Amino acid sequence: MRGEELIGVIGGLLERNGRRILLVVADGIGGLPMEPGGPTELEAARTPNLDALARVSSLGLLEPVGPGITPGSGPAHLALFGYDPVKFNIGRGVLEGLGIDFRLTPRDVAARFNFATADRAGNLTDRRAGRISTEENRRVVGKLRAGLEAPAGTELFIETVKEHRGLLVLRGDGLRGEIHDTDPQALGVPPLPARAVDPAAERTADAFNRVIGQAGRILAGEERANTILLRGFARYEPLPTMEDRYGLRAFAVAQYPMYRGLARLVGMTVAPQTASAEEDLAALASNAGGFDFFYLHFKKTDSRGEDGDFAGKVAAIEELDAMVPRLLALEPDVLAVTADHSTPCALAMHSWHPVPLLLRSPYCRGGRGRFTEAACAGGALGLRPSVHLMPILLAHARKLAKFGA
Amino acid sequence: MRGEELIGVIGGLLERNGRRILLVVADGIGGLPMEPGGPTELEAARTPNLDALARVSSLGLLEPVGPGITPGSGPAHLALFGYDPVKFNIGRGVLEGLGIDFRLTPRDVAARFNFATADRAGNLTDRRAGRISTEENRRVVGKLRAGLEAPAGTELFIETVKEHRGLLVLRGDGLRGEIHDTDPQALGVPPLPARAVDPAAERTADAFNRVIGQAGRILAGEERANTILLRGFARYEPLPTMEDRYGLRAFAVAQYPMYRGLARLVGMTVAPQTASAEEDLAALASNAGGFDFFYLHFKKTDSRGEDGDFAGKVAAIEELDAMVPRLLALEPDVLAVTADHSTPCALAMHSWHPVPLLLRSPYCRGGRGRFTEAACAGGALGLRPSVHLMPILLAHARKLAKFGA
Repeated sequence: MRGEELIGVIGGLLERNGRRILLVVADGIGGLPMEPGGPTELEAARTPNLDALARVSSLGLLEPVGPGITPGSGPAHLALFGYDPVKFNIGRGVLEGLGIDFRLTPRDVAARFNFATADRAGNLTDRRAGRISTEENRRVVGKLRAGLEAPAGTELFIETVKEHRGLLVLRGDGLRGEIHDTDPQALGVPPLPARAVDPAAERTADAFNRVIGQAGRILAGEERANTILLRGFARYEPLPTMEDRYGLRAFAVAQYPMYRGLARLVGMTVAPQTASAEEDLAALASNAGGFDFFYLHFKKTDSRGEDGDFAGKVAAIEELDAMVPRLLALEPDVLAVTADHSTPCALAMHSWHPVPLLLRSPYCRGGRGRFTEAACAGGALGLRPSVHLMPILLAHARKLAKFGA
Repeated sequence: MRGEELIGVIGGLLERNGRRILLVVADGIGGLPMEPGGPTELEAARTPNLDALARVSSLGLLEPVGPGITPGSGPAHLALFGYDPVKFNIGRGVLEGLGIDFRLTPRDVAARFNFATADRAGNLTDRRAGRISTEENRRVVGKLRAGLEAPAGTELFIETVKEHRGLLVLRGDGLRGEIHDTDPQALGVPPLPARAVDPAAERTADAFNRVIGQAGRILAGEERANTILLRGFARYEPLPTMEDRYGLRAFAVAQYPMYRGLARLVGMTVAPQTASAEEDLAALASNAGGFDFFYLHFKKTDSRGEDGDFAGKVAAIEELDAMVPRLLALEPDVLAVTADHSTPCALAMHSWHPVPLLLRSPYCRGGRGRFTEAACAGGALGLRPSVHLMPILLAHARKLAKFGA
């Protein structure tokens, strides 16, 4: 069954009860050997707690989006939450907004922008404005905030993201996101105008063009960041919530804004920003009564993977392992430990490889002695698309009635 | 994701680079024990090279068309090449043409035929003309070639296949393949006329009926092969090419015409006929520079499987194993060894069993000590439809960009 067909069937079987599910997303935990025949990060790590858990849990592998497909964090998380990541394709501008904790509303169209450098004739000489520092970005954004006037009928928000990157949001009634990028992806030519792909987006494109024009005048004296290039225009459209789809009241704990934003997108209640494992665990503990689904995001495994830092990722895995007793002390009825995608140090980036999955409930078929990719490959849950996880979690929480008689 | 939806997603992520993929199809290599508890052909074979490779490769199982479905060579190969074999259903007549290296064109409708015996009243007494020899087939085909006149607006081709079997092709504008078989599948009745299933095929059916009528008159004096029964009418429609779908320039090496024909059908450049492993390897080596995808077909494993010759199939596997060092010497960036379908000696025919898959690249999760069905069943790649293979090969060749952010 495909993702949304499956969810349709599940929707007819939902039963509410007090049982609680804890989903721990160890971002990028899936790995690779650094050389042929070597251990993966999970194999190299000392993980006594995860291994003990593995012996009484069911193991498996999840494939985030599809075979060979390396997912971004957005689609990879949506798949874990049971949303078909191809059907629910979130625009880049919206993801950028989620990534800096900008509270988007359904009246918003968001676009990512780069500061860029143009010559006197208006032709681009640097599409990233010499990769200005975040500090300089803040200064220039401050200048724009002071000078820009929102087009009639809209509110305007402009935010620093990092280095030469920023976020531009227009808020208003009837705005649309079907607009082509203004980045021509070439030097020696001027930026493209924002152009509506759908006639319904023409008014919005005009509004963005007025902002771009103003920005050029305000930044005329800047040596490097004297123009902006917009891309990934997208309207914020919240998804059907996890309550709508699964009858779950869901609570999210994450140290990084992107993941809080993704949780909000599917209707989770989101804990205030945390900054340590202590705070993560405290946020979960103090909200244990009010919710029946808990999403905990653990970032370090992905960060060290992106760095290509094998020892660092091994250490991050061991940190996660050390949290396990305290996660178990929260007494979830169902506990899953998995990842949104793999981030092997050998690649120093997200990869297409399936992710390990550990699922503990009173209804598990035998586990294996370790929590590794290889043990998961032979596990009771087999290899499956990530969108299968939510129905399996619901079943282990006894929240799904029998199908047919 | 289903086959063609998956290919749609992949299509948006393609990145060209110089990395080269080598796909070795060991036809029918998947097997079965001859008695319960016994070894499969792969388990019985001494395969030091494949086993060494397995230790640094990812293993898995591929299911060619679907659970329980025993595929012909056509759909089984299409699935390996990433073409949904149910959607791209190639007509039997076309497959027969591919199998004898007949160069079909998009203006061709091809049908398989049997020579058959009818009595004076025109009722069938033997639907296979006493299984005449290939030699006799050639003599009778020669007589038909000399006597048949192509219907107006068409060219006519008639070819010996083997024993009582042949191929009849009409070439012309607007010909259609939606025509019922003329074989009544019974004795004591006359052949059926070629009858259009779709009104658009009526003109083509009439043309074939005129050919059948002429053939009856020409063969009236024959004792056994005095009529022909046609089936599997199909128009040749080349598929979207592998270049279209994957951005791959693909090169094929195969000793048997069927496989060269299947490769041509998906737009591969096909090496001239080879007749030994030496020639196969030479053809690959001398074309290594011009292409980025290489398909090598290895036939003996299937032939000995079809014969039910266990020792022969084991020897064929060992022959393949001996080729491995020279395949590695070609330095493909990604190497896959798998099969189109299983051909267990215990069945002496194609079977529905999934086929073993070995994939070597720098990005593989640990392998297992042997290349056998059982090792593959617990492998990192899991059990998947064969149409998943191409996206995974593309990913390992770093030819797919990230999906979403």
